[in-house]
Amino acid sequence: MHLYIANQNYSSWSLRAWLIFSHYQLDVEVTKLKLFTTDFYQSLETISPTAKVPTLVDQQVTVWDSFAILEYINEQYLQGQAWPSDVGERARARALAAEMHSGFMNLRNELPMNIRARRKVELSEGALQDIARIDAIWSEQANQYPDGWLFGEWSIADAMYAPVALRFQTYGITLSQAAQKYQQRVLTSDSLQPWLHEASLETDIVIEDEAGVEV
Amino acid sequence: MHLYIANQNYSSWSLRAWLIFSHYQLDVEVTKLKLFTTDFYQSLETISPTAKVPTLVDQQVTVWDSFAILEYINEQYLQGQAWPSDVGERARARALAAEMHSGFMNLRNELPMNIRARRKVELSEGALQDIARIDAIWSEQANQYPDGWLFGEWSIADAMYAPVALRFQTYGITLSQAAQKYQQRVLTSDSLQPWLHEASLETDIVIEDEAGVEV
Ligand SMILES: N[C@@H](CCC(=O)N[C@@H](CS)C(=O)NCC(=O)O)C(=O)O
Ligand SMILES: N[C@@H](CCC(=O)N[C@@H](CS)C(=O)NCC(=O)O)C(=O)O
Repeated sequence: MHLYIANQNYSSWSLRAWLIFSHYQLDVEVTKLKLFTTDFYQSLETISPTAKVPTLVDQQVTVWDSFAILEYINEQYLQGQAWPSDVGERARARALAAEMHSGFMNLRNELPMNIRARRKVELSEGALQDIARIDAIWSEQANQYPDGWLFGEWSIADAMYAPVALRFQTYGITLSQAAQKYQQRVLTSDSLQPWLHEASLETDIVIEDEAGVEV
Repeated sequence: MHLYIANQNYSSWSLRAWLIFSHYQLDVEVTKLKLFTTDFYQSLETISPTAKVPTLVDQQVTVWDSFAILEYINEQYLQGQAWPSDVGERARARALAAEMHSGFMNLRNELPMNIRARRKVELSEGALQDIARIDAIWSEQANQYPDGWLFGEWSIADAMYAPVALRFQTYGITLSQAAQKYQQRVLTSDSLQPWLHEASLETDIVIEDEAGVEV
């Protein structure tokens, strides 16, 4: 299997897909392309119809969206264990994952993932609402599953929300105690460490994803 | 089961979720709420954490996103038949569905679903690219599955792209021959007709979703 990703400091959708390979220690060859460069578009041109990352190539199968990659790996290599086994919990986990996949536009625009930076930003009303919603999700799940991932065992929902834990760290966002505990769990998790290490070795600046002022 | 939707003339996400019930003739009670009214938010407040439609309530289970509803119904009531049975085709179908769920922002903003209207709009470069991408998807799938749905048998991918067939009709968008054939298939499909009929009986104007000039 071959996973195409972008700059690890910046590419939040790449991180979401990459995490399932890391968490379950699945064998995958990773190619990192530099965002918005000619090489990026040329490399993806013949592979992905949208020329975006993440894109997964598994022999004859090409999957060009993070959510679809997560579902594919779960079905094909994990016998479904990356979703909760209970049907109601699985539906809720999918709804939370889908909410991230299609929403939180203000948060995504105003708090771009930028792992190495420590910044201050002015937030719009919409971004504050996005943050409040994520705090509520993390706290409610922590009530139900103390000391665990969002649904006890690690799931695709955790992959979808992982970049937000990093964004909140970068921009010093204050969270409720329960939400902060979940954030720390994500940030200190074994499966994330290789990504953080590789991101820390990068030096490229992607100006489109730089926001706020140094603190 | 109870499905909450909004104005059928306008609510494209509602239509996507509703279509799987219609296509497979599944029993569901439908409650229609009027977009952006106090009643809309009050009715959803106690049901959905995002106060958006579509939201499905199936006894203990609440699902508050179109994509998650489609996956839930497929798993719970259709033995998986709403995705292609081949693993590679299923991955592609999921990628296409996910592409719609998370993207096509220009198209969604500039060509809001407005079934009864016939309009002319000025399109941005981004919207033209969105239209070209959808034309490419529909034509390529028609090459592979002539006379069929996107993947031969009807699938969740068809639910996700159905509102676009209506948008293209409203705004008189010119398509390639293969894409137009798929569009006509969608527009004349049995499962869509009840929705079109109910939309035609509505008289409310949602100003946020009115774009373009009358032709
Ligand atoms: N819906 C897609 C979004 C992918 C996406 O937007 N990827 C960004 C990097 S994080 C990208 O490839 N941008 C390059 C471009 O838009 O040209 C997914 O979930 O995978
Ligand atoms: N990602 C959601 C989007 C749902 C959505 O945006 N629904 C609109 C109507 S089509 C809505 O409820 N708008 C009311 C609001 O935003 O206040 C899904 O796929 O279900």
